[in-house]
Amino acid sequence: MKNINIGIFGAGTVGKGVIKTLIDKSDLFFKRTGINIRIKSVCIKDINKKRDFPLENIILTNNPNDILEDDNIDIIVELIGGIQPCKDIIFEAIKRKKHVVTANKELISKFWIDIYSLAEENNVLVFIEGSVAGGIPIIQTLKRDLISNKIQELVGIINGTTNFILSEMTLKGKEFQETLKEAQRLGYAEADPKNDIEGHDAKYKLAILSSLISEKFILPEKIYTEGITNISKKDIEFASKFGYVIKLLAILKNHEDNKIELRVHPCMINKKHPLSSVNSSFNAIWLKGDLVGDFMLYGKGAGELPTSSSVVSDILNLCMEIKQGNYIHINIKENHENILEIENIYSKYYIRLLVEDKRGVIAIIGSIFDKADISINSLFQEDVYDNKAEIIIITHIVQEKNINNALLLMKNYKEILEVENIIRLEDF
Amino acid sequence: MKNINIGIFGAGTVGKGVIKTLIDKSDLFFKRTGINIRIKSVCIKDINKKRDFPLENIILTNNPNDILEDDNIDIIVELIGGIQPCKDIIFEAIKRKKHVVTANKELISKFWIDIYSLAEENNVLVFIEGSVAGGIPIIQTLKRDLISNKIQELVGIINGTTNFILSEMTLKGKEFQETLKEAQRLGYAEADPKNDIEGHDAKYKLAILSSLISEKFILPEKIYTEGITNISKKDIEFASKFGYVIKLLAILKNHEDNKIELRVHPCMINKKHPLSSVNSSFNAIWLKGDLVGDFMLYGKGAGELPTSSSVVSDILNLCMEIKQGNYIHINIKENHENILEIENIYSKYYIRLLVEDKRGVIAIIGSIFDKADISINSLFQEDVYDNKAEIIIITHIVQEKNINNALLLMKNYKEILEVENIIRLEDF
Repeated sequence: MKNINIGIFGAGTVGKGVIKTLIDKSDLFFKRTGINIRIKSVCIKDINKKRDFPLENIILTNNPNDILEDDNIDIIVELIGGIQPCKDIIFEAIKRKKHVVTANKELISKFWIDIYSLAEENNVLVFIEGSVAGGIPIIQTLKRDLISNKIQELVGIINGTTNFILSEMTLKGKEFQETLKEAQRLGYAEADPKNDIEGHDAKYKLAILSSLISEKFILPEKIYTEGITNISKKDIEFASKFGYVIKLLAILKNHEDNKIELRVHPCMINKKHPLSSVNSSFNAIWLKGDLVGDFMLYGKGAGELPTSSSVVSDILNLCMEIKQGNYIHINIKENHENILEIENIYSKYYIRLLVEDKRGVIAIIGSIFDKADISINSLFQEDVYDNKAEIIIITHIVQEKNINNALLLMKNYKEILEVENIIRLEDF
Repeated sequence: MKNINIGIFGAGTVGKGVIKTLIDKSDLFFKRTGINIRIKSVCIKDINKKRDFPLENIILTNNPNDILEDDNIDIIVELIGGIQPCKDIIFEAIKRKKHVVTANKELISKFWIDIYSLAEENNVLVFIEGSVAGGIPIIQTLKRDLISNKIQELVGIINGTTNFILSEMTLKGKEFQETLKEAQRLGYAEADPKNDIEGHDAKYKLAILSSLISEKFILPEKIYTEGITNISKKDIEFASKFGYVIKLLAILKNHEDNKIELRVHPCMINKKHPLSSVNSSFNAIWLKGDLVGDFMLYGKGAGELPTSSSVVSDILNLCMEIKQGNYIHINIKENHENILEIENIYSKYYIRLLVEDKRGVIAIIGSIFDKADISINSLFQEDVYDNKAEIIIITHIVQEKNINNALLLMKNYKEILEVENIIRLEDF
């Protein structure tokens, strides 16, 4: 097979980058793959809108069926995003024996088994490199490059919006709301930023990575998720004082007893850890494999060209698979039933309390933590005002349920006015 | 094909790791590939030496032909290192239609075209992930994961020995010779350390990476190479004062006019660059692609398990290729004829001079640099003693031939006693 025809759905930021790249670099790609890759059709909402990519020899349509029903199209590239109409498009494409390249993290994370089962049934491939961490090829790295490893831990900074916000808050000493507005103005956050700042985007991506790693399917709703809206300038300053920075992390830990620990939340990490200096819109994925040991990938997590890098690499690799024939399918048939409940995880904790500024309060706190079987690593009193004081506690490693017990016990003491924040702290 | 038989040459550090991994994880690997991978024979020098891997069901031999002539062996894994007998073994294996996995950077870098041409002729595959940067899967990353990119620059810390030595010198304020001895004692440097400390090991690896990136063959001898034996504690301290660290870097830059710039040498890099904090025996490869932008891989550059990670991943991926059949061969047929001469590169330079401590010397230096058309960024006088002074100069970006001209001009002035060191400085 010397010619492969492609149909693309969506010509937004990434779509435009993919279209331009496939056109501009077609000679290079022919040299590398031995295949003429041709964009036959592009499906977009508004066919009259002015586009800044060359339209010669491309059929523009707003009817998905023009691509789906075209027997000469071998691969569809879905770059619309969200569940519908993408789900119908991808399912129909697979049924019509078309291979699929997509960057749709939400769809893949929620319908993994259905999509890959249908793909196997129809003997087509579904490639998803663009769905996690933009230009960082973490999917291929896990699937092929580290195939000899058991992945013991994975910690990712995989959401650009929140990393931009936290980096700005850290570097410029600003509060969350102000920085969010700045991020929206600069295009790093959407008008409705919920999906990013509440951690859902990172959760979808972790669901995909953990399904791939555990070779069992993990629904995103099974992943404990906390966003960054509660992080204040004060927490970032205290973290810094202790040698830590706050990042929104996606964490996977494989336990010896086959349980898997999965969580997305803001977390304090040591300034010496390589992840701590991953700033602004960069993403990084640090992992520990039983053979490779500590390993990290670092790169741009979003944007027209970085995501195009992943999507177009998928297209080229898929073309070479088509040339070879005889596909190897992703073989995940069962759900992961062994996900650790959040109250059973172990971590260190940073706890910021507002208390009455009077003698005996520290003794009360000490006895509560003692009763809850929590060992305190350090305790500081800060910012005394209006007969109130702030107390910062950092614990040793303890199970989360003990922290919850301590919080319950605190309710019995009027001297403890408020639990202002609790942030997990990890020394990976 | 459900069973694949393997013959392994060499059971040193990496060989042992590969053998143990293939045995211990055979169930997992069957699950992942659908193939029973069996070590049939291992060829070693001394078959009577006690081995700490299980020997049941494995044929031990000291005769390479026992493996090469065995028609039931599908893949040979060469982990001896050096040119001979590896060259004969690999050529003979390919002629007998056996696939090859090797970590032999010297052999691959010197005989790339011969090996890959012969492999294509015999329709077998040669996988080499273990040959560069231990556990870091840079070969697959360049070949597949970033296939859509033109790589514009690549900068690697790809020799563990020199990185260990330079890191120790930096962290502990020690001199080179003392640190080398420590490295030898700890097993980070060989008894004859020349291959590492003079940069040859990094040169072989850069030759492989640059052949892969430029899709033309580059012999290691074409790469300008300088080792780290001239680096003193003093240079490291001055570097630190200016916000830099010294690393042995392997550098590739693709120029617009199709020339390629390749060099291995100690280099000052900014402490803010992610490569600067890659310490001890860790390796890292930072690169810039036209789509992916800035990208970095970080991991263990050597050792039993990290290198086994790459070698065993190669074996598994090769098994899946064998199952698929219809191989895609690496298609490099011509030599790269367009390598930039070192005198034509552009860089910043750190120059440490010993001069007479008297008036007018700085004026002399100023006029020499002016004549040589070199713009000085900063100049410091340090360490005055015995009527001598040290002068440290950091230049703006300039062509290397201008620096050579300045050195020639300096010979005319008895006030300039010695050029103590010149180190390139790069702001990637």
